[in-house]
Amino acid sequence: MQANGLIVQLLLTGNEIMSGDTIDSNSALIARRLDELAVPVLRKVTVGDDVALLRRELAAMAADADLVIVNGGLGPTVDDLTAEVLAAVAGVPLQEHPQALEHLRQWCGRRNLQLNAANRKQAMLPAGCDIVDNPIGSAVGFAMRVGDCRVICTPGVPGELAAMLDDIVAELATGLPGAGRSHVLRLQTFGLGESTAQQMISDACDSWPDEVELGFRAGAPQMEIKLTVRGEDDLPARQQCREQLQALFGDHIIGEGDTGLAQAVLQLLRDRGATLTTAESCTGGLIASMLTAVPGSSDAFHAGFVTYDNAIKASVLGVSEQSLATAGAVSEEVVLQMARGALQRAGADYAIAVSGIAGPDGGSPDKPVGTVWLAWGNAARMRTRCLHWPVERTLFQTMIAAAGLDMIRRQLLDIEEEPRYFAQRAARGG
Amino acid sequence: MQANGLIVQLLLTGNEIMSGDTIDSNSALIARRLDELAVPVLRKVTVGDDVALLRRELAAMAADADLVIVNGGLGPTVDDLTAEVLAAVAGVPLQEHPQALEHLRQWCGRRNLQLNAANRKQAMLPAGCDIVDNPIGSAVGFAMRVGDCRVICTPGVPGELAAMLDDIVAELATGLPGAGRSHVLRLQTFGLGESTAQQMISDACDSWPDEVELGFRAGAPQMEIKLTVRGEDDLPARQQCREQLQALFGDHIIGEGDTGLAQAVLQLLRDRGATLTTAESCTGGLIASMLTAVPGSSDAFHAGFVTYDNAIKASVLGVSEQSLATAGAVSEEVVLQMARGALQRAGADYAIAVSGIAGPDGGSPDKPVGTVWLAWGNAARMRTRCLHWPVERTLFQTMIAAAGLDMIRRQLLDIEEEPRYFAQRAARGG
Repeated sequence: MQANGLIVQLLLTGNEIMSGDTIDSNSALIARRLDELAVPVLRKVTVGDDVALLRRELAAMAADADLVIVNGGLGPTVDDLTAEVLAAVAGVPLQEHPQALEHLRQWCGRRNLQLNAANRKQAMLPAGCDIVDNPIGSAVGFAMRVGDCRVICTPGVPGELAAMLDDIVAELATGLPGAGRSHVLRLQTFGLGESTAQQMISDACDSWPDEVELGFRAGAPQMEIKLTVRGEDDLPARQQCREQLQALFGDHIIGEGDTGLAQAVLQLLRDRGATLTTAESCTGGLIASMLTAVPGSSDAFHAGFVTYDNAIKASVLGVSEQSLATAGAVSEEVVLQMARGALQRAGADYAIAVSGIAGPDGGSPDKPVGTVWLAWGNAARMRTRCLHWPVERTLFQTMIAAAGLDMIRRQLLDIEEEPRYFAQRAARGG
Repeated sequence: MQANGLIVQLLLTGNEIMSGDTIDSNSALIARRLDELAVPVLRKVTVGDDVALLRRELAAMAADADLVIVNGGLGPTVDDLTAEVLAAVAGVPLQEHPQALEHLRQWCGRRNLQLNAANRKQAMLPAGCDIVDNPIGSAVGFAMRVGDCRVICTPGVPGELAAMLDDIVAELATGLPGAGRSHVLRLQTFGLGESTAQQMISDACDSWPDEVELGFRAGAPQMEIKLTVRGEDDLPARQQCREQLQALFGDHIIGEGDTGLAQAVLQLLRDRGATLTTAESCTGGLIASMLTAVPGSSDAFHAGFVTYDNAIKASVLGVSEQSLATAGAVSEEVVLQMARGALQRAGADYAIAVSGIAGPDGGSPDKPVGTVWLAWGNAARMRTRCLHWPVERTLFQTMIAAAGLDMIRRQLLDIEEEPRYFAQRAARGG
């Protein structure tokens, strides 16, 4: 594993992590970024905001490791102790760092905030440390040697950590041999479970090459498949595996890297000069929100309708009162009228319409919680489907919003084959 | 902190956690359950599936702690090492445990599976250990003393761990004095930063009682303030602190427990028999999505409009073409017309309208990225405000959506005082 022999440990601090109030995603983020350099994390330790505990852990780590990344405890409050702890372990005083102070002044200035005593504490750093720029937040990172170990202190706010890791990874990369760099290919999928994917690969691939490491990261709504090789010589083997996965999972692969469903759909629309609109009942604006979270989405998304109530489905989208009364809001004819109404109202080329029962209440024997009708397409070709996806409310909304986007993606790509989840999530009689 | 003096440590094992492919939520689950007993977790260590590393950590922990909970490594595969490691540290052999074997037989039987060698490995446990039942999965938990320390080994599958924790917590509770139970009060706030809140408390409260632990959890959009006491005798002191915080932060406190802004607004609307609609440009459906994520939101939210494009603002909400052309989409007159148009279209009592520049592109010298106009109110009283909140796109959308909900909350509560963020986030000329 340690192609380059570097011993790396992480020290995480925070009462909110120890108490379980916050789930630590930062150490995963750090590990993933270091993995790009084929630098595995050997060990991580988490303690609360306690000077004595932190000192003991940091001193032990610095004696053992080549690199220690400390995460958390850079904030302005009294329970933010990282600078004090590092100074004590390194045997240097805390002093006001001019570069950190200037960063704080500018940060406060941009926000029309007074630089108060609490903020000013964030400039009190171990004497002789280097600054790691924080492009987002008030707390700069800082780094220094303790014996033979480099200690880098990073902020606990995930967005700030992520922004800072680019610099840290770039700095580390310059010190490592090129052959030790790992080459990671990430494939984004929708509609596959981790165990299904693993089983399909085991069944189909007799001889998976040892040098291509296979990993999965199950998320909602997407699942990532990761192919890692540890040197350039292994890139052809990785490419072969890539092709095997393409043959196996085909149209369930949305794209490479960080591609999200909304981003993929918007790009396909943009390429075709087309626009999309949404008519949402049970997903309540989530599809629109996923689309508009992508920068530049206004090119292809102009309007969305959240028609949560039957009267609104009729007045805004022109759904017939009779269909609502006889077939009910969660029905093929209503969801079709919602899609056609939205197309017309928005003057859009494509529409997604969704009507279902997100729960926990509102289910009935013939339409249990988790039942949903989807319609998608354009004026020339509008299709529908009923699914039954009985999971917790917000997960249901997430998966159904993603399914709607996936349907449009498939239509834009002229994929006629049905996704696996149509069979797995088929509604009774749907 | 440790009212009952128990020292508890966690040892987590798993290559998938070390690599960052899986985010560890198990340790948070364990910590939260132990917190019910006022038993804080002092320290947690995570390492990969490596016998030597695991032995070293477990031996060190067992020497220091009263209780060690090990999580992960109970499965059937070769990299599941926990039983082997505990046996080595305790100095006992592994042997087939009849109760574990019987559990496996029944588990396989219910699934029509053959009990294979891989499964059978899960019955090989340290000699003399106790079994902890696993009501869900194939791997039983097990526990034994190592010196003065009790070591409990639990499965890494979150659902199995959760099921097993009921028994573990019940067992621990019988050994603890009732007075040691902790009492946690959580306050949800919007519009306060962690450092501002800390500073305000430091400035205002000369004598904060030692027995009331104060904690902050900064999230987006809300910040939680947590007051913890370790026994019933300290409840009056906690109540005094609660009142001090109320006096300090007043209307920035949304509610107690897990109350979210959307939930609070929906409850206020429900109490008044009123409905709310949304007209969103730069937040792109996020306000509607936040509202409809709450079960039962259909009581008070019937319709939302995502009018991302100028033509749609005109055709759907009746915004005048002239206002759009002269004042621009991000202007007071347009956002007012959006709110009034949505009120009318939806037949709702209250409306929130938002139009701004989420970025990263689209800014101009007089309307830089982060500029946003908000309108909120009812037909009788509609108010507007321009803010400048220059943060990353999705964080901007989150904070502005929350600000819109907060404005309606304040109006429904007849709060006339302006929130602190109006001054902090004031736009030039806004």
